[in-house]
Amino acid sequence: MPIRTLVWGENIHENTNDVVRGIYPRGMHAAIADLLSQDANIVAETTTMQEPEHGVTEEKLARTDVLIWWGHKDHGGVDDAIVERVAKRVWAGMGLIVLHSGHHSKIFKKLMGTPANLHWREAGERERLWVVNPGHPIAKGLPRYFELENEEMYGEPFSVPEPLETVFVSWFQGGEIFRSGLTYRRGAGNVFYFRPGHETYPTYHDATVGQVLRNAVNWAYNSESHQEILTAPNTPVDKAIEAIVERGGKLTSHPKGV
Amino acid sequence: MPIRTLVWGENIHENTNDVVRGIYPRGMHAAIADLLSQDANIVAETTTMQEPEHGVTEEKLARTDVLIWWGHKDHGGVDDAIVERVAKRVWAGMGLIVLHSGHHSKIFKKLMGTPANLHWREAGERERLWVVNPGHPIAKGLPRYFELENEEMYGEPFSVPEPLETVFVSWFQGGEIFRSGLTYRRGAGNVFYFRPGHETYPTYHDATVGQVLRNAVNWAYNSESHQEILTAPNTPVDKAIEAIVERGGKLTSHPKGV
Amino acid sequence: MPIRTLVWGENIHENTNDVVRGIYPRGMHAAIADLLSQDANIVAETTTMQEPEHGVTEEKLARTDVLIWWGHKDHGGVDDAIVERVAKRVWAGMGLIVLHSGHHSKIFKKLMGTPANLHWREAGERERLWVVNPGHPIAKGLPRYFELENEEMYGEPFSVPEPLETVFVSWFQGGEIFRSGLTYRRGAGNVFYFRPGHETYPTYHDATVGQVLRNAVNWAYNSESHQEILTAPNTPVDKAIEAIVERGGKLTSHPKGV
Amino acid sequence: MPIRTLVWGENIHENTNDVVRGIYPRGMHAAIADLLSQDANIVAETTTMQEPEHGVTEEKLARTDVLIWWGHKDHGGVDDAIVERVAKRVWAGMGLIVLHSGHHSKIFKKLMGTPANLHWREAGERERLWVVNPGHPIAKGLPRYFELENEEMYGEPFSVPEPLETVFVSWFQGGEIFRSGLTYRRGAGNVFYFRPGHETYPTYHDATVGQVLRNAVNWAYNSESHQEILTAPNTPVDKAIEAIVERGGKLTSHPKGV
Repeated sequence: MPIRTLVWGENIHENTNDVVRGIYPRGMHAAIADLLSQDANIVAETTTMQEPEHGVTEEKLARTDVLIWWGHKDHGGVDDAIVERVAKRVWAGMGLIVLHSGHHSKIFKKLMGTPANLHWREAGERERLWVVNPGHPIAKGLPRYFELENEEMYGEPFSVPEPLETVFVSWFQGGEIFRSGLTYRRGAGNVFYFRPGHETYPTYHDATVGQVLRNAVNWAYNSESHQEILTAPNTPVDKAIEAIVERGGKLTSHPKGV
Repeated sequence: MPIRTLVWGENIHENTNDVVRGIYPRGMHAAIADLLSQDANIVAETTTMQEPEHGVTEEKLARTDVLIWWGHKDHGGVDDAIVERVAKRVWAGMGLIVLHSGHHSKIFKKLMGTPANLHWREAGERERLWVVNPGHPIAKGLPRYFELENEEMYGEPFSVPEPLETVFVSWFQGGEIFRSGLTYRRGAGNVFYFRPGHETYPTYHDATVGQVLRNAVNWAYNSESHQEILTAPNTPVDKAIEAIVERGGKLTSHPKGV
Repeated sequence: MPIRTLVWGENIHENTNDVVRGIYPRGMHAAIADLLSQDANIVAETTTMQEPEHGVTEEKLARTDVLIWWGHKDHGGVDDAIVERVAKRVWAGMGLIVLHSGHHSKIFKKLMGTPANLHWREAGERERLWVVNPGHPIAKGLPRYFELENEEMYGEPFSVPEPLETVFVSWFQGGEIFRSGLTYRRGAGNVFYFRPGHETYPTYHDATVGQVLRNAVNWAYNSESHQEILTAPNTPVDKAIEAIVERGGKLTSHPKGV
Repeated sequence: MPIRTLVWGENIHENTNDVVRGIYPRGMHAAIADLLSQDANIVAETTTMQEPEHGVTEEKLARTDVLIWWGHKDHGGVDDAIVERVAKRVWAGMGLIVLHSGHHSKIFKKLMGTPANLHWREAGERERLWVVNPGHPIAKGLPRYFELENEEMYGEPFSVPEPLETVFVSWFQGGEIFRSGLTYRRGAGNVFYFRPGHETYPTYHDATVGQVLRNAVNWAYNSESHQEILTAPNTPVDKAIEAIVERGGKLTSHPKGV
C-alpha cells in the first residue's frame, strides 16, 4: 500500500510575489508533490493554509501517513488547535517533514521544545550539501555532495535539540555552515528537518532535492498507529503483573492524562 | 560563587492532605532545599505556586542558575506566560531539574515536545534505581543501586525524546521498569528528569536522593548566559564573512524572531 | 529481493551439553533461522564457528545483507582476521545483530569500543521485556511487554556507548534491570544488540522473540554498499570544488588509509 | 586539586621536517602544554612516543586525569599493548582528547569502533570553526566562530559514530565542511575529538584553540575512578536482592571477563 503523503503549503508568496509565482505557478506545494510522485510507493496530495481548518481536518490527518510542511510568512496565523492536532498525530505515528523556513512554524517549535533560531541572509548564494551519514536511508542514492546555486543562507547555532542523527551539513559561499538534515523521533512519529527551499529560488525543481524528499517520506513512514501514547493509564494494584500488597500513604484521587 | 538554586513547590497536597503534611510539615520544597543545602557550593531558595507570578518573577529567574520543579495536582493552573518565561531562561542557559509528577508539568512537556505519558500505580511498592551510567556526573558517589521502600510506580513507555544519556533505570516490585534519570539540553540549558518523589512517601528525606539532587544541580549549572539563542538575526549581504555578490530573486521583507 | 541473512552459531554447547542439545538438537543457529524464515522477505542461511574461516568467507560475507551472531564459550577462539573482515563489511553497510552472550564477542566489543561488561546470574529466573520505544521498527507488532519464564540475568551497568535508541528494557525477578534492546550505526552498518538467548532455555523457540528478530533483520537491512567508507582519499588542490591557491608549509608525504 | 593532564606527542615531524621544527622548536606537545598551563586548574606534563613504553607507563597513566593525543606519521608504530592500556584507563574514567590526525590513531579507532576515515587536502586554506552548541562547556567563552588562516582540510563523511553532541562544525575555503568537535563517553571516560592542528601550521599557538583545549580538559575530567567497569562479575543466586529459587537447565561453568 503506498505511503499517503500530504504536502502542506502556506501558499502566500505564490500569490503576492511575482518572483515566487514565476517559479512556482501552481504553488510550491504542487512542485513538491510532483517530486514525490516520481516514487511509485508514494501517493502525494496537497493542501494549503487557506482551506478550512488550514486543510488539515481530523479526517484528512487520519488518512495521512507523512505530512510535509512548508510555511514562512504567517506562522502566527496557524491556529493553535490545529497545531495541537498535528502534534497528536505525530506522537501517534505520523511522519513529519519540515522544510526550510518551517523551522519557525508552530508545529516544529512545539515538537523540538526550543526556539529553533538561526541567523540568515537572502543573497542567492551557493549552498553545497554534504552527506555526513552515507548509510542513512535519507541519503540513499545520493552523490557525496550536491549544490544549489542560489539559496538563502541559514547559519549556526540552530537552536534545536541534538538530533538522533545528522544526515547533511551545508557549506555556504558567504562563509557559514549549517546542519541541514536532522532526524528526530517524537512519540511514535519520525521527524525530519531539511533546510533548502527558499521561495525565490527553484529549489523544488531540483532532481536531487526530489530524491532527498522521496527518501525522507519512505524513512518517516510508520505503518503502525500508537494512540496509546496519548494516554497515561492507571494500573490498578490488583492487576499488577507481580503480586504486590498496597502499602503506605495514599492520595484520594490521582489525575493523569495527556 | 555558589550555584543559586530555586526550588519550586506546587504546595497543594501539603495543605490539603494529612499524610503529606505529616511527612513534609514545611512543604516538599523545604525538604528538597534542605537536601541541597548540604552542598556548600549550592545556595537553595524556595518558592511556591501560590506566590505572585507563581513565585517565578523575571527578577527572581534572572538570579536563578538552576530551577527545580515539583508539581502534580494543578499543572493546568500554572499560567502559560510564566511557562514561556521559564522556557526562555532555560534556553538561555538556566538548568532545570524536573521531579516525579512534574513529567506532566507544562514546562516539561513544552521542553520535550512530547506528551510525557507513562502508566502508573500508587501502591507504596519497592523501587530500586540502578545506575546504568556510572561515569556520569549525576551518578557521582552513588552505590551501584539504591532503594526506596515505598514509591509510586511509573511504567514505560515514557513518551519523551531519546535522551542525551540515561543515568538511572528503575525496577519496581510489581513488575515494571522505568528510565528514571534522563538528561537533555534545550538551547543552552541542561535539563534533568528524576523520577522518584511521590508526595505520600518520605522520598525527599532520603540521603541518596539528596546526593542525586546535589549532583544534578552541579551538573545542570551553566556559568554563561546565552541570550543570543532567543534571536534570529539577519546577516546583511555586505557584512558576509566571505565576500559575495547578491543574486537571484528576493522577497521585500523577511520576518524572523523567536 | 529478499534479505539475505546469515545466522552464525558458535555451536559448542549444543555438542557438549545435554541440556542444550535437548532444547536445540539441530543447533541454536537452526532454531534462529527457523524463526527468521517465517518472514517471506528473509532468506536465512546458517553457518558455524567450526567451518573453514569460521564459515564467514569473503565470498559468503559479500552476499550477506544481515549477519546474526551468537557466541559464548569460545569468543577468544575466533580469528582476529575474521573479526576484522566482519567489521569491514559492517562499516560498508551489512547489518549486524548480536545476541545475548555475544556482548563479549570480539566483533561486538570492536564495534562498540568498550568492554561491554555487565553482571550476571544463571538461575532460570523470569525476565520481562518492556517496549520503551513503541514506534521503533524493531517493536512493530509487539505487545507492551513480553516474558521469558526462564532466562539468565544480565545486570547494569552494561558498559556500551549510549545507543542511538533504546528499544527494550528488561525486568528481572531477582531485582535487576537491563537495557536489552539497543541500536547503533557503525559506518553504514546498522547494529542491534538483543539480550535474551541463554543456551539452557528455549528462548529461540519463543514466538515473540521470533518477531523481534524478524523486525531487527528488516530494520538492519541496508540496500546500498558503501565501500568508500573504508578509504581516506586525498583531494588534490587543483581539484578543489572552490578554487584555492596552495599556501603555507607542507609535508612531503602524507599517508592515510583505513 | 588541579587536573593532571598528560600531552602525548608523536614527535617525529618536529625532528625531520624544517617547517614543523621552525613552528614548534620544542615540539608540538610543548606548545599544547603551554596553552593548557594558562589555566590554573590544569597541571600539564608532556611525553613522547620515543620514551620507554611510548611514555605512557602504567604508573604515569594512573596519575593522569586527562590524556591529550597528537599523532600522524607512525600510528602503526604504537604498540598494541599500550593502546589496550590506554583504553582501559579511559573506560575506568580518564578523559581523552584526540587531536587532528589522531583520528587515525589506534586508540581513537579502537574507542570509536569505526575506521574514522575522511577525505583531506593539504593546501594551507582557511578554516572557520562555527560553534553549533554554544551552551556546551567546551564552547565556554568562545566567539560565535573563529578562523585558522592556514589549515589542512578534512572533509566528510567522517566515519565515526553519531556523537553525544556536536560542538563545532568547520567551513573550508575549498568548499568542504567537517564536524570538527565531537563528544563521546566510553565506559566512564569522556572523549573529545578536535579537528585542527596540522603540523605545518601554527595552530597550537592560536589563543582560541588554547581556550578550546582548556575547556575540553575541564569537561573531560572525571574525579572518580571506575575500575569495576573492567569486570563482569557473577551475582550468586543466594545473593540475589529479591529472593529467587534456581530453576531450569544450567551450564557447569560460565566464563566472563573483560
